[in-house]
Amino acid sequence: MRRIAVEQDIMAKNGRAAALNRDRFARERTFVVNLMSSPGSGKTTLLVRTLQELKTRGGRLAVIEGDQQTTLDADRIRATGVPAVQVNTGKGCHLDAEMIMRALAKQPAPAGGTLFIENVGNLVCPAGFDLGEAKKVVIASVTEGEDKPLKYPDMFAVADLVLVNKVDLVAALEFDVATLKANVKRVNPKATVLEVSARTGAGFEAWLAWLSSSRTVTAPVEARVP
Amino acid sequence: MRRIAVEQDIMAKNGRAAALNRDRFARERTFVVNLMSSPGSGKTTLLVRTLQELKTRGGRLAVIEGDQQTTLDADRIRATGVPAVQVNTGKGCHLDAEMIMRALAKQPAPAGGTLFIENVGNLVCPAGFDLGEAKKVVIASVTEGEDKPLKYPDMFAVADLVLVNKVDLVAALEFDVATLKANVKRVNPKATVLEVSARTGAGFEAWLAWLSSSRTVTAPVEARVP
Repeated sequence: MRRIAVEQDIMAKNGRAAALNRDRFARERTFVVNLMSSPGSGKTTLLVRTLQELKTRGGRLAVIEGDQQTTLDADRIRATGVPAVQVNTGKGCHLDAEMIMRALAKQPAPAGGTLFIENVGNLVCPAGFDLGEAKKVVIASVTEGEDKPLKYPDMFAVADLVLVNKVDLVAALEFDVATLKANVKRVNPKATVLEVSARTGAGFEAWLAWLSSSRTVTAPVEARVP
Repeated sequence: MRRIAVEQDIMAKNGRAAALNRDRFARERTFVVNLMSSPGSGKTTLLVRTLQELKTRGGRLAVIEGDQQTTLDADRIRATGVPAVQVNTGKGCHLDAEMIMRALAKQPAPAGGTLFIENVGNLVCPAGFDLGEAKKVVIASVTEGEDKPLKYPDMFAVADLVLVNKVDLVAALEFDVATLKANVKRVNPKATVLEVSARTGAGFEAWLAWLSSSRTVTAPVEARVP
């Protein structure tokens, strides 16, 4: 009973902080995307390529990077010219809404632009933590096997979009993309699934189009409430 | 302060249960190996091949499988003829020593044999939880990138052995095994590192030899305390 009470307390506190973040993002018209996956799914490589593509199209960008340790990922992001702040979670296995609040105090969200949050590589912990984002994107690489949505259903259930990454490796593997897609649909019939390769750029037009259309629908509060 | 107190309470409770498990394993001369990794590193495939190899050499075997959901992995293990019990952690991201105790009530450990525990796919949570095992083995696949030991140091710091899996895919990737090994050594100078492919069987002789020699050193309490 005690452990449950503590958990409810933590989640309620996170929910309050997430609501404050969400209000702020709406006020400043920042479109916020929370990227989640296993370690090694290619999240950072995907994000670097995404930022490079988005930079050529204009628009303000920023990144919050989550990791247990190191600033390796933030360093990779900054090399693209996009500002990035690193949050180290130490023993923790996910970002929470208060960490985002503190990161925004160091590096303000890009008003009218897009903020990407790269969560700690983990298919369990980040699923339950609302950060105040507009969209949750789960990246699953083809090297991880088709069964992951069934084994980690909480994560796939909260995804707005599942990006199947590293599709350039399919030929070298025994991996069936159709089975993965069917397994995603079993735990989350509403999720969009797109195939990409962060290495070759395959599928990026569809991913960037998804971002653009999601932003149009989600971000401009003024447009929805005239 | 409160969160820290709760964490200490949980860890102390786990430590007591782990000590009971360890006593039992020593009494029954069961060699216990805790396998940990990211989701999709090939843990189950590696375990299946390992069991098949060990079966031909004699010796009693059993498996405890941890996953958030599904009995997919236990089903794969049982197909080898080795008994397996599945523990579903629900919202939890790791096995703990009490879960092992309850699993042993359903399926006793193989006296004089080897028990493999396949932990929940996660590079953070399982690191801190002693299950009463003799050895902790961390599996890192070559598709995950060389930086994982630095980004998830707690996990790699507790490893007795790091198995670098999927080495058959190195040719298709930009991956440098030497860099991964150097990064393992930075967080854990004592860990042994072996390269394997669960798909092709490459490197399995060395892995099975490591198991055999670890068992000789660790398991027979009578031999150490005459």
